[in-house]
Order: sequence, then structure tokens, then C-alpha cells
Amino acid sequence: MTDKTDQIIVVGHRNPDTDAITAALVYADFLRRMNVNAKAYRLGDLNNETKFVLQTAGVEQPDMIPDNIPEGTQVALVDHNESQQSMKDLKKMRVSHVVDHHKLGDLTTSEPVYLRFEPVGCTGTILTKIFRENHLDIDQKTATLLLSAILSDTLHFRSPTTTEDDKKVVEYLHPLAKIDDIQAYAGKLFEAKSDLTGFSASQILLLDFKTFPFQNEHWAVGTAETCNTDKILERKDEFLKEMVEEKKKHKLNGFLFCVVDILKEKNLTLIPTEDEDKVVRQAFKVDIKDGIADLGSNISRKKQIVPTLEAYFNGKNK
Amino acid sequence: MTDKTDQIIVVGHRNPDTDAITAALVYADFLRRMNVNAKAYRLGDLNNETKFVLQTAGVEQPDMIPDNIPEGTQVALVDHNESQQSMKDLKKMRVSHVVDHHKLGDLTTSEPVYLRFEPVGCTGTILTKIFRENHLDIDQKTATLLLSAILSDTLHFRSPTTTEDDKKVVEYLHPLAKIDDIQAYAGKLFEAKSDLTGFSASQILLLDFKTFPFQNEHWAVGTAETCNTDKILERKDEFLKEMVEEKKKHKLNGFLFCVVDILKEKNLTLIPTEDEDKVVRQAFKVDIKDGIADLGSNISRKKQIVPTLEAYFNGKNK
Repeated sequence: MTDKTDQIIVVGHRNPDTDAITAALVYADFLRRMNVNAKAYRLGDLNNETKFVLQTAGVEQPDMIPDNIPEGTQVALVDHNESQQSMKDLKKMRVSHVVDHHKLGDLTTSEPVYLRFEPVGCTGTILTKIFRENHLDIDQKTATLLLSAILSDTLHFRSPTTTEDDKKVVEYLHPLAKIDDIQAYAGKLFEAKSDLTGFSASQILLLDFKTFPFQNEHWAVGTAETCNTDKILERKDEFLKEMVEEKKKHKLNGFLFCVVDILKEKNLTLIPTEDEDKVVRQAFKVDIKDGIADLGSNISRKKQIVPTLEAYFNGKNK
Repeated sequence: MTDKTDQIIVVGHRNPDTDAITAALVYADFLRRMNVNAKAYRLGDLNNETKFVLQTAGVEQPDMIPDNIPEGTQVALVDHNESQQSMKDLKKMRVSHVVDHHKLGDLTTSEPVYLRFEPVGCTGTILTKIFRENHLDIDQKTATLLLSAILSDTLHFRSPTTTEDDKKVVEYLHPLAKIDDIQAYAGKLFEAKSDLTGFSASQILLLDFKTFPFQNEHWAVGTAETCNTDKILERKDEFLKEMVEEKKKHKLNGFLFCVVDILKEKNLTLIPTEDEDKVVRQAFKVDIKDGIADLGSNISRKKQIVPTLEAYFNGKNK
């Protein structure tokens, strides 16, 4: 990164998932096709699902973001907008573009910028629209990246975040990606997502880990979307203990770990201490037994878990 | 407004200009065509230019926003996003859509939303793109509203905020609006904009008045874009005196009033007290004589005045 002055850095969120990585790659490509000098970076290691997707598409993973990004560097954010979930010192950078499908957090800018937010299931859906609006061809590799991200983020349309737009875009991308059987391909994605072989408890907790400010408190919600919840729940005590350690390490007021059964569309959330116990009981009106809260069909962090916690902390449910 | 539950309120900023009013009308129309129940309102009285535009297009002005909007009402913001510039109690409403070309201010949301920001000269340019992306016809009335807003906001491409996109969109709208001579039409707009007959000094100061938080301070920047700066400057003493009153009334730390010569593209800014004198000297590196700072070609509040002040208050120019 020698020529930093006019190159835009494109990044997805920390603890990247498939949408974060593929959106960075595809949006950097879009910007370059608009004659903007842009390069995708990643903010962390890839999970097994994302590795599988890049391998299927025949695309290299983005470089890890360097440590020494100068202040004032131009940055494009995809699949996130909150500084806590972004690169180090984001507040010292010049954010010029954001493409996202999350709530708008603490982002502010000192000049007009490009923002494209839509309440759809996946950043890939918005990116596909942007390509089409600009009459750009989508090649097989790009279509595979986008399609995979949508299947991953929406749990193949099972997630309540799924919209008609996501389904239409998948229909459009399907022939371009030249993937025969979408259902079978989604199955392979979820299998890769569920494969936690070789990961420690701490690594699993942080694989899909996002922090959120709620009033004066600092919370984290981690998620494991899996076809095999038993594999995780049988290590429950190990996770609960490790969550207490992670809480300290990240200076958190609360930490929830949602174990989401992709196929049954159910969420069993691990509750490490009295702090979370009190909040979850009141916010979700549920009972908690042996460190597990059955949050039922509340499987979307973005659309269900975080808004419920936010409403609680804003005093609406108190 | 009896059926508030599912109707989205669409509003431009306070002290509305042509873009704020036409964007509210056109975006409400767009949402309705997307089967969303939406209605445009205005947050203040129309200026003479906007009255002329609506008359030319044959369109009624939007209703004034009622006082009793219930908390949690769904709101779409156009041509602004900062709460200080918006409807009363915006923080208690549910913002679901924003289309804007300003910097991103203090907006946050608790759920994913539609945001469409582009650093172009006018909201009308973005709205035209949105219509085209959605393959919607633009009728003569709508084209006239959009075209007028772009000519007004960009001072017919004289403002440094003007982009290639604004010019391309005007080219596209021109035949649809069925206005023969764009140059002559822009002249009529600026004549209407310059016509301050019957307005008191206080009314003129507030016609195009926006407030901005800078660190812990609360500033306002008003603008009069006119073909006849003499008419205003000959009343300078009256304005300077009235500005001190308005500062008190709005509890401002600073208040600048930019008198912009549309045709010569020059900005002479009125400086009411020592507070503004100190900041403007340091932030813009200019001399100030007899309550007037010659800010030269800094004619854009959004792109030049406010970013310079913001950089000053953020300590960059201190």
C-alpha cells in the first residue's frame, strides 16, 4: 500500500463472514470499473464457509489490512457502518462510501458521501442492484460470490431478514453463477459453516462476534449458525466459562452467544452471568435455565436480538 | 393525518428551499408508486423561487406539517438528515428512508433503513436516478420540479457542488420538462430567488438558515443567493443588528450570513460580533472589514463553508 493517497480501502466488518468478504471484493471491483482506484482488505481470518465460497468461485482472499494506515485515508465500508465493528481508528479515516443493510450507528462524515443502505437480507443483494443500475456485466465469479453471500446471510431465505429483493436477486444470479442446484449448494455452505473442527471455544465465540453500544453499556452478541447445535451445546460449560473471560478481555457489560439451528430456525442463547440473565429475562420475556435462554424463532441478530436489546436499554421495555 | 399508523411522512429541511420542497413532493410520489403510503409535508413557508417553480409546474404546495405528529411515526427525510434541521422531535420518530446529498450528521436508527446519499449538487439528481433505476416514467410536472431544483441548487452549474451527474440529469430532464430555453428559465429562477420584496431583515436572515453543531458549539449559517447583492448590502447595518438578536433567540454561539452573488460567484459574509470575527479570520485566513468577510469563491455552504468551520472546530486549523 505505497500509493495511499488516491486509493480507497474497501473493508467489511471485523470477524468477517461471507458477506463481509465477498462484498469488499465485489465493491472494490465495482469502484475500479467506475475508474476509482480501490482495493479490498479483510479485517480478520476467514471462516470455513467463506473459504469454501472463495474456492468455489476461484477467487483469492483479500489481503489482511496493514497496521499502518495513515490518518485521512479514504475508506469504503461494506456490510457494516459502526466504528466498533470496523478497522482501527476509523474515526481518523475519511469514509467516502458505505454499502450496508444494518441499522445506522455512530457514523458521521464531514463531507457529502455515497451511502447506500437498504433493509434487505444481504449486502450482496444491494451490490447486485448497483451493478444492474450501472449496466455492468456480472461474470461467473462475481455472481458466485454474491449468490453465496445471499444464501449465507439469509440462511437460504429462512432468516426473517429475507426480503422479496433477496429472492429476486438470487433468481437473477443463479444462471450467471452456473450453479446447478441452489438447494444442494446452500447445504454445502451450511455444512462448511457448521464445521468448527480445530477451533477452540474462544475462537468459536469470536467467529461471528459483534459489539454494540447500548446507552452507556457495551455489549457483544456472538452467533454460531449451525446444522449441528448438539456439537456446541455439549461443550456448554466450557463456553460459559470462556464467555466470562472474553467479557473481561473486551471490557463488556454483557455478552450473549446465540446458537442458531439453521434448519430448525431456532435460537438457544448462552447466558454467562447474572448481568445477561437479568437483561434477557426482561427484554425477551423468557425464562432461563442452566445458562440457556430459549429465544425460539428470534434467529436474526440484526432484526430481532439487537433491536430488542436496544429497546430495553432505551427504557421502552424497562 | 388521522391514519398515521402506516403513512410515511416525507419532509425536506426547515426554512425550505426549492430542492427541499420538490424532493419531498417527488419522493412521496415515488414511494406511492412503490405501493408505500406516503405524503409530503413542508416545514416552513415557501420562498419566492419555490413558489415560481410550483406555479410553472402546476403543482400545489405540500401541506404544512401538523403539530401533533405522534411518537414513532414513520418519516422519510429528503435533502437533509440532521435533527436540528428537521421536524420537531425527529429523535422520537422512526426514520425509515433518507435521500440526501449532505454530509451525514447525527442520524442513527434502531433498525435497518433505506439511505441513499450521493455527493452530487442536488437531491433532484439522485431522485431522477432512482426513478430511472426503477424504470418509472417521469411526467412533465415531475421533470419540471426536478430540473428546477437542480438549476437552483447548483446555481445552473456555477456552484462548486456541481457534478457531471447533475449535468447529465438536466440533459435527460430537459425534453421531459418541455422548457425551451434552460438558460432563460434559470434566469427567471434566480430573479425570483433575488426578489426579497416585502421580507423583513429577520425574515431574509431565516429564509435559507441552517444550524450546525460544531464540537460543543451551536452555529448557524444563513445564505442569500441573489443577482442583486447591493440591495442586501445597503441594509448591512440593519442585518448586523438583527443577527445579534437572532443569535440570542436561537441560542447560537455564532451566526454567519453569506450574501452570494449568483452571477459573479462571490461570497460576502456578514460578521455580527467578535465571536464570528475570530473564527472566520482563523478558519478562512481572511481579513474582515466593517462587518464583512470577503470569502471570495467560497459560495457553497455545504462543500466549502461548513467543512472549513468543522475542520477549524475539530482543531485541524486551530
